[in-house]
Amino acid sequence: MKISHIEHIGIAVKSLDEAIPFYENVLGMKCYAVEEVADQKVKTAFFMVGQTKIELLESTDAEGPIGKFIEKKGEGIHHMAFAVEDGVQNALNEVAGKGVQLLDKAPRKGAEGLSIAFVHPKSTIGVLTEFCEK
Amino acid sequence: MKISHIEHIGIAVKSLDEAIPFYENVLGMKCYAVEEVADQKVKTAFFMVGQTKIELLESTDAEGPIGKFIEKKGEGIHHMAFAVEDGVQNALNEVAGKGVQLLDKAPRKGAEGLSIAFVHPKSTIGVLTEFCEK
Repeated sequence: MKISHIEHIGIAVKSLDEAIPFYENVLGMKCYAVEEVADQKVKTAFFMVGQTKIELLESTDAEGPIGKFIEKKGEGIHHMAFAVEDGVQNALNEVAGKGVQLLDKAPRKGAEGLSIAFVHPKSTIGVLTEFCEK
Repeated sequence: MKISHIEHIGIAVKSLDEAIPFYENVLGMKCYAVEEVADQKVKTAFFMVGQTKIELLESTDAEGPIGKFIEKKGEGIHHMAFAVEDGVQNALNEVAGKGVQLLDKAPRKGAEGLSIAFVHPKSTIGVLTEFCEK
């Protein structure tokens, strides 16, 4: 597995309508896309910061993963996504072979058309970790 | 304030002796420095991923900020640090003027000799946020 950079940081927020103006007006970033990912029951907003995206995640369903996360832990950083250069399936195979528990056994389609997969935070010292590739 | 990139992601871990081998052997990263920051009651380990560092934080005191964080929330992402190009004090002044609650009113010395300051996660939609500059 070759990780090139942090592709994005996923941040759970209650409301994009509140969070987008904060990132734009206080931190001076520019939201360049808003996208609903029905599969993950979220609406996302993207900001570019250097080579990494900030992905704000608002739940569209209280029973979805972001809805449950906010209920349990409150708003905050939800996951970290690494860009891999040699395939998401290859990354999954490699970490699974080293004992990491997979949440996705095969890549699936994520926001912005990326190929993505998550591995379990219990296997990654508390950090919900995503691998992704264009 | 001009944010150029995400300078680092701070991750609270119980043990660097367990976490460093995970990042090296499973994720294929290379720990390039270990440093104790007495002021923050942590021992830190650094990895470079593209233009962003991963900073693992092990508490040296159960009553320190990382010790308390792990007790309350468990291991996981603790904070996000933005590199600013026009001064940490300038960033603090700017966000304070927009209603953000500061944890540091003036920059102080952080790991790797950076000038750093934190702002309160209650003012930043749940993300403990740091500004830093070389």
